[in-house]
Amino acid sequence: MWPDRRALDLFEIELPILQAPMAGANGAAMAAAVSAAGGLGSLPCAMLSADRIREEAAAIRAETDRPFNLNFFCHAPEEPDEATLEAWKARLAAYYDEFDIDPATPVTAPNRAPFDAAMADLVDELAPAVVSFHFGLPAEDLLERVKATGAVVMSSATTVAEARWLEDRGADAVIAQGSEAGGHRGMFLTNAVASQVGTFALVPQIADAVSIPVIAAGGIADGRGVAAAFMLGAAAAQVGTAYLFTPEATISELHRAALAHGSADETALTNVFTGRPARGLVNRVMREVGPLSDAAPPFPTAGGALAPLKAKAEAVASPDFSSLWSGQAMTLGRRQDSGALTRRLASEGLARLGGSPG
Amino acid sequence: MWPDRRALDLFEIELPILQAPMAGANGAAMAAAVSAAGGLGSLPCAMLSADRIREEAAAIRAETDRPFNLNFFCHAPEEPDEATLEAWKARLAAYYDEFDIDPATPVTAPNRAPFDAAMADLVDELAPAVVSFHFGLPAEDLLERVKATGAVVMSSATTVAEARWLEDRGADAVIAQGSEAGGHRGMFLTNAVASQVGTFALVPQIADAVSIPVIAAGGIADGRGVAAAFMLGAAAAQVGTAYLFTPEATISELHRAALAHGSADETALTNVFTGRPARGLVNRVMREVGPLSDAAPPFPTAGGALAPLKAKAEAVASPDFSSLWSGQAMTLGRRQDSGALTRRLASEGLARLGGSPG
Repeated sequence: MWPDRRALDLFEIELPILQAPMAGANGAAMAAAVSAAGGLGSLPCAMLSADRIREEAAAIRAETDRPFNLNFFCHAPEEPDEATLEAWKARLAAYYDEFDIDPATPVTAPNRAPFDAAMADLVDELAPAVVSFHFGLPAEDLLERVKATGAVVMSSATTVAEARWLEDRGADAVIAQGSEAGGHRGMFLTNAVASQVGTFALVPQIADAVSIPVIAAGGIADGRGVAAAFMLGAAAAQVGTAYLFTPEATISELHRAALAHGSADETALTNVFTGRPARGLVNRVMREVGPLSDAAPPFPTAGGALAPLKAKAEAVASPDFSSLWSGQAMTLGRRQDSGALTRRLASEGLARLGGSPG
Repeated sequence: MWPDRRALDLFEIELPILQAPMAGANGAAMAAAVSAAGGLGSLPCAMLSADRIREEAAAIRAETDRPFNLNFFCHAPEEPDEATLEAWKARLAAYYDEFDIDPATPVTAPNRAPFDAAMADLVDELAPAVVSFHFGLPAEDLLERVKATGAVVMSSATTVAEARWLEDRGADAVIAQGSEAGGHRGMFLTNAVASQVGTFALVPQIADAVSIPVIAAGGIADGRGVAAAFMLGAAAAQVGTAYLFTPEATISELHRAALAHGSADETALTNVFTGRPARGLVNRVMREVGPLSDAAPPFPTAGGALAPLKAKAEAVASPDFSSLWSGQAMTLGRRQDSGALTRRLASEGLARLGGSPG
């Protein structure tokens, strides 16, 4: 038996394993497999249209009637001024030259839309069991609409203050996102990248500060991590990078290869790909322009000017300009399908905790 | 019963709690109290003369006949050129002006001597049960002399590669120092501060890579952390910051007050105090000059030019120029003596692991 059943009861799931929503890296197939296995699958919606979200949710429901999570970004969109965008293109000009790209190529701002009234309509329509947010919570009226659907609501905290803020505003659970985690930091009350807190220190301090269940995230990729998360006071573990090794991950072969050869000390937090700090494997553009650049325009527009470089580089099998999101425990990843990975995380974790593996 | 007895057997101790050696912050009193309680106390020797080390070792032995650890730095000393030191003073010139300090005040390089033949003589004479190093290991002939005394030898690793290097060169145990840890990073094969790895990710990956016992360090300050360390594959936990809350800690009242009011997201890795990255509570000089400054001269000389500023500021109860070393779990610290803390860490950890508290 799991030593803490609060997350299991809250989400109405069998295994305390949450698959981290990974925008661009997973869709319905992974979410469905995880939920069907007894964990909580997540569909990242930030880069999807409403119609696409409908299709994906239907695809999950065609595979399982168990709970799943719809995840949204809720950043306050910032309109970059022309000078900032021009300065960023100037910073990248030598690369445009190297790849023989016309600097006048129009830059398309990537679609990472914040949660809005149309998305609230969609949540109402689709009625997912769980809705999670990244970068805080949406405005009060929108949040009320989500909660009125009966969905369990959660979001990520990178500090104790963020966890308290989320609980105070009605979150039902908080994800303690330690600095080991891959992808975007959920930070929203702080921009102090140099002071981000490791999972080991963050989980118990958040557990002491809030009364809602805490989900540990960051550096968890096998049963040892799941068991350790419970010892620290978490009621469940959220796992991201380990799922990038599954066939259900929708990442490029270049990204897969980089993960397979990655090492724990070869990642960094960078803002060059989107304008917000996110952890990925260090590559050429991170090394030469970042990892943190004052010139990067606000989220998510930084990626616009990089897109043509990424396309040209990937065409010759180079990951030099691609975001290779990864947490710090990538060497624990195994090639295994998402359902089997979910069951293994839980059974190895439970065995380590001294319960009967299940 | 502890699920892994390898560290207990190696160090011949009762409780798998190692007190981190903290140069300037602990002496014989803390080391003796921890060892007497059944853990492994440590005496940091890097800032002490041979005579002083003799006295301190005798003071420990007057209190307990249990094993203790003598800790040494083994950095390759770098002689800074005059221009580097002048540039550093120039960087700090406005502060000298503010505090009305004569810029011609001679700068004394702080005494943080690397392990040498004289210290090897001393180890031979004092025959401590354990000798630990920071910043790698000493040269082969010196290491052989230490091992010939029968001392158990260990050192810190911040990456998997460093852990393998230590095992290959004869270390009997390796401390996996996660990025949460306070004080100096033990890094010696890398200088990539931005890629330092959290405890949660580091411990299992090092445990997979080496066959010697792994000691988890960084962010461990209560029984939850001790239990989690074992779950991740560690055979013991090394605890630093929590011991700074004990009466045996030899830190200033300013440092104590800063720790008592600190928050997990208010620390950073900085090189401004010594020239090497170390984690401390963010204060004025870190904010304004660092936290990482290209102008800081090599370890340990950076502290020289700061010393007069520190003295003047502390005289008016300001911690603006003092190193306030702290890990990221300082809010878990409790006012308690070192012996009681050692026993509590072990009993709470064991209880959480499902063993009988003891």
